[in-house]
Amino acid sequence: MTKFAKPLALALAASALSYPAMAQQAGSVPLADMADGALDQDKIAWDFVEGITTEVGPRQAGTEAEARGRAWAVKWLKDQGFQNVADEPFMMDTWVPGDLHKAEIISPFPQPLVVQPLGGSASTGPGGIEAEVVYFENVGDLAAAPEGSLAGKIAYISHSMTPTQDGSQYGFAGPARWVGASIAKSKGAAATVIKSVGTDNHRTPHVGGTQVVDGMIPAGALSIPDALNLERMFARAGDRPITMKLVLTPQKLGMTQSGNVVGEIVGRDPSLPPVLLACHLDSWWNAPGAFDDGAGCGIAAAAALHVSHTGQPLRTIRVLMAGAEEVGLHGSVAYSKAHIDEPIGVAFESDFGADRIWRFESNFGTSNPDLHALLAKSVARFGVANSTIVASGGADINIARDQKTAIIDLQQDGSRYFDLHHTPDDTLDKIDPVQLRQNVAVWTQVTGILANYEGSIKGE
Amino acid sequence: MTKFAKPLALALAASALSYPAMAQQAGSVPLADMADGALDQDKIAWDFVEGITTEVGPRQAGTEAEARGRAWAVKWLKDQGFQNVADEPFMMDTWVPGDLHKAEIISPFPQPLVVQPLGGSASTGPGGIEAEVVYFENVGDLAAAPEGSLAGKIAYISHSMTPTQDGSQYGFAGPARWVGASIAKSKGAAATVIKSVGTDNHRTPHVGGTQVVDGMIPAGALSIPDALNLERMFARAGDRPITMKLVLTPQKLGMTQSGNVVGEIVGRDPSLPPVLLACHLDSWWNAPGAFDDGAGCGIAAAAALHVSHTGQPLRTIRVLMAGAEEVGLHGSVAYSKAHIDEPIGVAFESDFGADRIWRFESNFGTSNPDLHALLAKSVARFGVANSTIVASGGADINIARDQKTAIIDLQQDGSRYFDLHHTPDDTLDKIDPVQLRQNVAVWTQVTGILANYEGSIKGE
Repeated sequence: MTKFAKPLALALAASALSYPAMAQQAGSVPLADMADGALDQDKIAWDFVEGITTEVGPRQAGTEAEARGRAWAVKWLKDQGFQNVADEPFMMDTWVPGDLHKAEIISPFPQPLVVQPLGGSASTGPGGIEAEVVYFENVGDLAAAPEGSLAGKIAYISHSMTPTQDGSQYGFAGPARWVGASIAKSKGAAATVIKSVGTDNHRTPHVGGTQVVDGMIPAGALSIPDALNLERMFARAGDRPITMKLVLTPQKLGMTQSGNVVGEIVGRDPSLPPVLLACHLDSWWNAPGAFDDGAGCGIAAAAALHVSHTGQPLRTIRVLMAGAEEVGLHGSVAYSKAHIDEPIGVAFESDFGADRIWRFESNFGTSNPDLHALLAKSVARFGVANSTIVASGGADINIARDQKTAIIDLQQDGSRYFDLHHTPDDTLDKIDPVQLRQNVAVWTQVTGILANYEGSIKGE
Repeated sequence: MTKFAKPLALALAASALSYPAMAQQAGSVPLADMADGALDQDKIAWDFVEGITTEVGPRQAGTEAEARGRAWAVKWLKDQGFQNVADEPFMMDTWVPGDLHKAEIISPFPQPLVVQPLGGSASTGPGGIEAEVVYFENVGDLAAAPEGSLAGKIAYISHSMTPTQDGSQYGFAGPARWVGASIAKSKGAAATVIKSVGTDNHRTPHVGGTQVVDGMIPAGALSIPDALNLERMFARAGDRPITMKLVLTPQKLGMTQSGNVVGEIVGRDPSLPPVLLACHLDSWWNAPGAFDDGAGCGIAAAAALHVSHTGQPLRTIRVLMAGAEEVGLHGSVAYSKAHIDEPIGVAFESDFGADRIWRFESNFGTSNPDLHALLAKSVARFGVANSTIVASGGADINIARDQKTAIIDLQQDGSRYFDLHHTPDDTLDKIDPVQLRQNVAVWTQVTGILANYEGSIKGE
C-alpha cells in the first residue's frame, strides 16, 4: 500500500493521543492526509485495546468485571477529549460460567478432555453426570434422531468448519452451538458437548451462547483437538459404548445491571442526524476480548478522534460501546429502545477482529449512488474493494435497522477470526498493529466524509 | 524429494502393519527401497502415536495412566510381531499436579491468569497464597537479587526465547524454569511464576520439571499471553504494587512403580551387540504427548519393523520405550543400571517431535569414518546433511554414554517444537504425516545399515 502522507499530518497523527492540545490546529489537516497518517502512525486504537485488555481483562456481561470495563472506557473517552461521555444503564438476566469445567472419558479410553460451558448452559452440579456419548456428524443428523432416542445420554455434535475470508462458514457450522443443545434436549438428552465452532487446533474451547429453552440441559464445547480425539475414540471403540463424566457448574445470577458507554465528537450542526460508530465492550469470561471486541472499540474511537483533528465535523460523531452483546445483544436492544426517537444519519460497526478491511458495502448504493461511490473511491487506496452487497450492519446497531437508516459494512478479513473467536486465546498478542492501523485509516476516511456530508444519507 | 521405489517395496510398505504375514518374504526387498517406501506409505508410526494418544491419553510418570500406556505399548509391540517384549519395572518418587491451578491478579488490575504447576512444585494449599509479585527480566537478574530481598513475595521470571531449528534457545531460556524456583527460594520467595519456556502465543502453559530443593516453594508457569499481560501490567502500574493470588495443589505420592517397555527384532547373530532405538512413553499430565514423545516411539518401532521386512538383520534391534523420562530420566537410569553388562553396539533416540530430520551426527566420525560416511551418504536423498558435530545422544540412552559406545543423532527440525513442548497442545493433530514418514524413512535406512554391519561400531 502506497503512502504519501504530508509531514504535518504525520506529526499530528503521531501526537494524536494528546488530542486536546491539537484542538487549536483543528482544520489544518486534510482528511485524506489524516487517514494516511493513521495508517502509519495511529496509536489510539492500540492504546484502547491494550489498556482494556491489560487493566480490566475479561468482561462477562452483567458482572462486576463488565462494570469495571465500562468505568475504564468512560475514563478513557474523557481523557481523550470526547464529550457527553456517559454510561447508560440497563438491566439484564445474568449467567456466569461457575468454577468447575471438566470432561473425562470413563470408558473405554479413560482420559481428561478440555471443555468449557456454553453461555446459557445449565449446571450438572459439582458431582457431574456420567452417561454414554452418542455421536452426531452434524446438527442435521441430530435433528433427524428419533424422539426420546437420547434419553439419559450425552449428545456429541460435530461439524466441519474451515476458515473463510468473509466468515461465512460460521453460518454453516454455527448451528451446532446455537441450537444443538436445545435439539438434543428435545430428544431427551441429559447434556450436550459440541466440537468447538472454530478453525484452530489449540486446546482452547470456543464458547458462545446457545439457545436457552425450558428445562435447559448442560452444554459444553470441547476444544477442537479434544473433539477430534473423541471422534477417533468412536472409530476405535467398535461396539464398546463411550462413557463420559461431565462437570459444568454455571450459575444464573438473576437481574443485574449492564450498560452502554457513549461519547461524542459534537458537530457544528447538532440538528443533523449523527454518525454512529459502534462496537461492544463486553467479552466472554475466558479471555480479555482483544479481537472480540476491544479492537473494534479502539478502531471506532480512534477514527472519531482523527476526524476531529481535521476540524470540527458538521455532524456529531457518536461512539457507542455497547454492553452485553455476547449474551444476546442486550446493549444494542437497550440503546435502540432508549434512543429510537433520535434519528441516526448513518451507522457502522467494528466487531470482526482487527485484520485488514478488504470490502466496502452500504445499503445506499441505489438510493444515494453518488455518496456510495465517493466513499468506495476514498478507501480504494487502502486495498478496500467496492461491492454491490447490501450492508445489513452488525449486532450493535439495532437502532439503525429499527430506524431503517443508512448502514455501512467495512468488511474485515476473517481468515483467522474463528481461530480466536470466543476462546481463551483472544488476547492482545493476536492483534497485528499494521492491520489494526489499516482499519483506523479506513474508518477515519469514511467517518470524515460522512460527518461532513451535507446531504441526506438514506438507507434503502 | 525424489522417490523411485519399486512396486514390490511399495506393496510391502503399504501392508507393513501385517508384519508377521510378511515374514516369508523377508529378504526380498532391498533396504533402500524399503526406506523409500516408508517415505511415501509408512502407516506404522502413525498407528502407534494415534493409538497411544487416543486410547491412553496423558501418561504422567509413576501414575496408573503411565502404567496403562506401558500395557498398551506391550500389546501393540506384540501385535506387530516384536519378540522378547517386556515391561521392566522400577520404583520412583512420584509427583502429581493436583486439581487446583489458579492465578489471579488481585490489584491493581484484577483478572484471572492461566497457570499450571511445574513438575516438583510444592502446594500452596487449596486456600492459596496472596503476595506482591516482583519482576525479573531473566533468571540472571533473579540470581543477582540481594539475599532475603524476596521474603514473602512471588518472583516472576521472564525470558526472551525465539524459535530455532536446532532448539538451541532452550538452553538460553530454559534456566527460568530449571532453576528459577530454587534461586527464588534461596532469596526468601514464597512462590515463583515464570513466563512459560516456549515460543507460541497460546494460553497453554509449558510445564516441565524444576529443580527440587529442601523447603521447595510453589512454582507455576503462566501461559505466554498471560506472562506478556503481566509484564504490561508492570509497565502500567507505576508505583502501585501488583498482588497475585496463586493456588497450586500438587501432591507427592511417595514411591510408585514405573517401567521401561522393550521389544526386539532378534538378529541372526545374537552374540553381536544390538542396535538400540530409544524414545520415552511417559508424557506430562496436561497432554497426550504426541510430539513428546509418542511420535518418537512410533518412528523407532516403525524403523525396526521395516528393517525386519528386508530380511532378518545380522544384529538384534532393540526398541526401548523408556518410562518416567520427563520427571528426571528415571527410566533411562534404571535401564542402564539393569543392562550395563550387556554391551550395546550403537544407540540413538527420537525425542524432538515429528518434524523433518535435517542433520546426521555421530560420535564415530573419527574412529570409524567409513561407517559415518556410509550412513551420511545413505540419508542424503532424504534431505539430511552430514555434520562434524559429535553426537551425544538423548535422554533415554544413558546406557550408551555409560558404556561409552557409539551414538547417532538424527536431528529433527525443532522450529515449532517449543510451540508445543510440555503444553496441553501436544496433541495428535500437530503431527504432519508427511514429515513423520520422512523420519521413518531416515530411521529405516540408518537402522538397516547398522543392524547388518559386520564390523565393530565404536564411539569416540
